[in-house]
Amino acid sequence: LRTIRLTIAYDGTALVGWQRQARGVSVQKLLEEALARIDGGAVCVVGAGRTDAGVHASAQVASATVATSRDTQTLRRALNAMLPAAVRVVTVDDAAEGFHARHHARTKTYRYRILNAPSVPPFVRQYVWHVPRALDATLMNRAARELEGEHDFAAFQSTGSGVRRSTRILSESRVNVMQLGADRAADLALIPRVAMPDARLLVYVATGTGFLRHMVRTIVGTLVEIGSGRQPPDLIAHLLEQRDRAAAGPTAPAGGLCLEAVDYDG
Amino acid sequence: LRTIRLTIAYDGTALVGWQRQARGVSVQKLLEEALARIDGGAVCVVGAGRTDAGVHASAQVASATVATSRDTQTLRRALNAMLPAAVRVVTVDDAAEGFHARHHARTKTYRYRILNAPSVPPFVRQYVWHVPRALDATLMNRAARELEGEHDFAAFQSTGSGVRRSTRILSESRVNVMQLGADRAADLALIPRVAMPDARLLVYVATGTGFLRHMVRTIVGTLVEIGSGRQPPDLIAHLLEQRDRAAAGPTAPAGGLCLEAVDYDG
Repeated sequence: LRTIRLTIAYDGTALVGWQRQARGVSVQKLLEEALARIDGGAVCVVGAGRTDAGVHASAQVASATVATSRDTQTLRRALNAMLPAAVRVVTVDDAAEGFHARHHARTKTYRYRILNAPSVPPFVRQYVWHVPRALDATLMNRAARELEGEHDFAAFQSTGSGVRRSTRILSESRVNVMQLGADRAADLALIPRVAMPDARLLVYVATGTGFLRHMVRTIVGTLVEIGSGRQPPDLIAHLLEQRDRAAAGPTAPAGGLCLEAVDYDG
Repeated sequence: LRTIRLTIAYDGTALVGWQRQARGVSVQKLLEEALARIDGGAVCVVGAGRTDAGVHASAQVASATVATSRDTQTLRRALNAMLPAAVRVVTVDDAAEGFHARHHARTKTYRYRILNAPSVPPFVRQYVWHVPRALDATLMNRAARELEGEHDFAAFQSTGSGVRRSTRILSESRVNVMQLGADRAADLALIPRVAMPDARLLVYVATGTGFLRHMVRTIVGTLVEIGSGRQPPDLIAHLLEQRDRAAAGPTAPAGGLCLEAVDYDG
């Protein structure tokens, strides 16, 4: 038997998320079915991070134990030939015996894209949260930075998820801003370029050892409340101290979120 | 009465194209229905270029005569509130009486994106043609440049379209290349960034006064035949001279094509 490590990119728009569900198409189900056809028997695929319905990944990492002796390039091509275009296996590598994508993950990095503009180009609509109202990005970044370090994030998890221990460590939590009016070279763009006057892209980046359910989306929902002046900047300190989910912002939409990296030791 | 000029961006993936069809959702139908609700009666919308099913536009231009006295910003917002997210009105402006988006268009610019890579990231799959085999971009650009100027493009129109006069002028016809392996800053990307080793983006750009049906897609299909060595570079000269559609390459898929600009005098 052989342990393989896969890097997977997926557009989560039409998927029920990473994990198998009673109904709907999940990435895990698609991969397990494709690998089972290659391996001639049931295969269990473990993902590093469980992404929810509608959430994307540009570099999810998964592990599986297989019997096939096909080389990794052939495996990658065979998998992609069976998977829908919304799910692509970017790399397949042989891993050390016992490699476990979830247990051995050191940190995960998520990005959340907010398009702060009058309207959203059709070509990016599934990958950003459209927030048309004015946002103070400096205030949002300052609030985001307060979440760096070890904190009890109980206020930022989905209600009723009931994880006992809600302390997590964020090594990075910040908001980056880009003005989009500036001309990008149309010939060098992978997607059609639409003129976007008065548009800014705000990207919230979070790197951490572990994340609670809906944690990034609740942080983003809260940062937007602060950035738009609906909540005071000291809300973050209050939430970390009081662990009060009801006082946090709404859960931001799934489409803006993407699992972008999983790091392992060595 | 009042003439307005609209700039429209749309993701053509799920649309039957610009023009109203007996079945399916067209951009013209969506716009005419939305404008009719605002104007309190039937409105006819004229588009500069007729894009086929699955073809995108980042800056289609349309004209319409309306009675409403609402200002252009309010009109734009009202239209976008009624249209699906796949179709966005980017600008609404008042135009000179008698302005006609098609008749008065001086040139149109189309871009066609070819992703020359082992596989395609899920996030761009609807906007590029995936060509995994080796392509000689220099050869393709040279062949593309041969089409600049005034030529009889009969060999490059869809069979059976039967336009009498097939002479057209291309002021620009070239292939630009970008190596994609290079790191783009993830925080500045509007869409999730996937690692793409050995990937190149080839963009065919064509600007002209008029285009025959399927002309850009047939040119691209032919350039790819030349670039992959399946056809000799002198095929272009042969096609222009012999007007032989059967000798041209296949029509490239709709999803790679985008109407990116319409120019008017003044």
